[in-house]
Amino acid sequence: MEFVECTYYVESAMPIDRAARAIAAEQSTGTWTDISTKEKEVDERLGARVIDIDGSNVKIGFPIDLFEIDNIPQFLATVAGNLFGLGALKNVRLIEIKLPKSFLSEFKGPRFGIGGIRKKVGTLNEGRAHVGTIIKPKVGLSPKETAEVAYNAGIGGCDLIKDDETLTNQAFCPIVERLEKVMEKIDKIKEESGRTVLYAVNITVGAEEIIERADIAMAHGANMLMIDFLTAGFSALKTLRDDDSVNLPIHVHRTMHGAITRNSKHGISMLPLAVIVRLCGGDQLHTGTAKGKMESDLEEVKEINDFLKSDWHSFKKVFPVASGGLHPGVVPYEINAFGNDVVLQAGGGIHGHPDGTTTGAKAMRQAVDATRKNIPLEKYSLDHPELLRALEKWGRKVDWSELYGK
Amino acid sequence: MEFVECTYYVESAMPIDRAARAIAAEQSTGTWTDISTKEKEVDERLGARVIDIDGSNVKIGFPIDLFEIDNIPQFLATVAGNLFGLGALKNVRLIEIKLPKSFLSEFKGPRFGIGGIRKKVGTLNEGRAHVGTIIKPKVGLSPKETAEVAYNAGIGGCDLIKDDETLTNQAFCPIVERLEKVMEKIDKIKEESGRTVLYAVNITVGAEEIIERADIAMAHGANMLMIDFLTAGFSALKTLRDDDSVNLPIHVHRTMHGAITRNSKHGISMLPLAVIVRLCGGDQLHTGTAKGKMESDLEEVKEINDFLKSDWHSFKKVFPVASGGLHPGVVPYEINAFGNDVVLQAGGGIHGHPDGTTTGAKAMRQAVDATRKNIPLEKYSLDHPELLRALEKWGRKVDWSELYGK
Repeated sequence: MEFVECTYYVESAMPIDRAARAIAAEQSTGTWTDISTKEKEVDERLGARVIDIDGSNVKIGFPIDLFEIDNIPQFLATVAGNLFGLGALKNVRLIEIKLPKSFLSEFKGPRFGIGGIRKKVGTLNEGRAHVGTIIKPKVGLSPKETAEVAYNAGIGGCDLIKDDETLTNQAFCPIVERLEKVMEKIDKIKEESGRTVLYAVNITVGAEEIIERADIAMAHGANMLMIDFLTAGFSALKTLRDDDSVNLPIHVHRTMHGAITRNSKHGISMLPLAVIVRLCGGDQLHTGTAKGKMESDLEEVKEINDFLKSDWHSFKKVFPVASGGLHPGVVPYEINAFGNDVVLQAGGGIHGHPDGTTTGAKAMRQAVDATRKNIPLEKYSLDHPELLRALEKWGRKVDWSELYGK
Repeated sequence: MEFVECTYYVESAMPIDRAARAIAAEQSTGTWTDISTKEKEVDERLGARVIDIDGSNVKIGFPIDLFEIDNIPQFLATVAGNLFGLGALKNVRLIEIKLPKSFLSEFKGPRFGIGGIRKKVGTLNEGRAHVGTIIKPKVGLSPKETAEVAYNAGIGGCDLIKDDETLTNQAFCPIVERLEKVMEKIDKIKEESGRTVLYAVNITVGAEEIIERADIAMAHGANMLMIDFLTAGFSALKTLRDDDSVNLPIHVHRTMHGAITRNSKHGISMLPLAVIVRLCGGDQLHTGTAKGKMESDLEEVKEINDFLKSDWHSFKKVFPVASGGLHPGVVPYEINAFGNDVVLQAGGGIHGHPDGTTTGAKAMRQAVDATRKNIPLEKYSLDHPELLRALEKWGRKVDWSELYGK
């Protein structure tokens, strides 16, 4: 029999082996009291097994027949369901998922992946880190104003422009008009510079409407789609990927993840979430930064990025996105940590440049170039004034608790 | 201007007023660095405001125009999005949501509510607590075996029978065959006893398929639907409610909530989640127990249940469900804590009765009757042997850390 293997960090007043058995029981065939002989037969066939115990980490094997495989909500209910509430456990955290081949075969994985996106943008040979930005102010601009900012960022050198996660289809910036205006500018950049800039338009909405919104986006010229997989639900991402008419790369944001991932002893680690995102077809995924404003454990982010870029089944590789408080001064840290297969996304760190968005985008690209050539930013900035101005403003790092919310 | 008001518990190395402003900025128009004068104009129009600070609790007002109102993922991105990951905050927990009338008016709330469900079951006048059960073993039974257990529970006195949250449409128990077999037994119970028993068939699946699955359930005679709102996504619940063809009450389960709600300093409290469930149309919702196996704060559960049963806009009231480790011996605790408008759901506490499921269901109903008549269980059990046997097995309470996982 094949098993889905999940590893949990567990704290309990019970001995660890009994805590492990409690999880296996709660999440498969058991309950808290003895029931009948029937249960023994069922348990042998479908009961989850404790496979291994290593310190506080327990590995549980779930027989594949427990799953309605392509029903992600059912999968989560089984491996990440009631156990988080069990009073007998003090803390429990899902830290790893291993899926058998027969499970993986039901999924398509990324449609484009790192290679497909590089091909679109024209960086397949160059292989450098991509530079992305988010429109700022993140909400409140009109479609025309949004397009202006997008043009300024793109012409300056950004490879990717994305909507804020809170911007979908509000009255102050309707999605159709926004998309039309931005894509006009994306076309203009192409004409003027020959470069393809991706615009990840945020089509996040419930899965019941996601294809409809993707169709609208495609009808108005979108070249990339953005979705928030936790608020919209994994099935919205999978629905997008599984629909053959949606022939665009998918930029996957993870807003709300901190509610689930941040406590290091409880909840769900980002890694298993990243596994499901790759499975369901995300082409880009936000995973954290080396030096940013969001709480982030560098070793953990590296592990996630390594997984996204690893050979896994027949799935294409996912482009990791580092985002949240980046600016030119931290670029070497990010590339040293994650390599060149990363999208370095700067919002304030581009639009907040003293000389404006276009100069800010240039400074970010210069920081990427300097790092690739192994030249210290200070030295490179001597004949790159855009970078120099950025370094003068932000330095190499930022004390977030000082700067944020001033 | 109207505002969505959200209260957050906040811990930060920054002074609380600056932490509050950081949240307001991150979740609306701001970023970590100054950008331009444009931002000031936008901020005045759409920026979230710090309304109040009370100790560690900060209340933020989000202008209504920030929202694409019926897009729940967008709503969550705004009030429960990136803030959980902000490095400048040590802990942050969404504890309350207040919605203005123009927001509420876009939602329908429960289709049936407590009154509608009582009408179906025939307890409108009697007004007693309902008794529910989950099929046990929770997975692994065939449709025919599931139906046998359902019959035994229903004829013994259960008002509600539900699927396990991990049981959807697996090969070992396909939903159509399961539903047909169970509804035959529900009809049989009606013929034999005149009583209507609800069967909450678990149609949890992504929102893209939820109506299809509801249609299948209705075509095969379902009288109640069950959905897990966190794994399937809020939009799946809302889609079910908003579709006029789905004329059945919705039993809402909350598997995975412990990953988000359990840490008392971080994440999202159950109360705001319950607010959204009522808004989106859940008729029953799991909220916790007074004496159960799941971790539960009694005062918090009371507060949630009070909200579900309160007068709120034009929305019908939601039937709270207490579930997880209940048995006849704890019934008085539950009813004393929550009143009679509660569904007391016992799985192991019914099927694990020494004399089997039917006797177990009778014992639960006897415990409800005794409590209504204000008769101590021990006394009532003197001429109710089913209850006596249950009390002999489980007593009045259970040491979960002892019993679970033995």
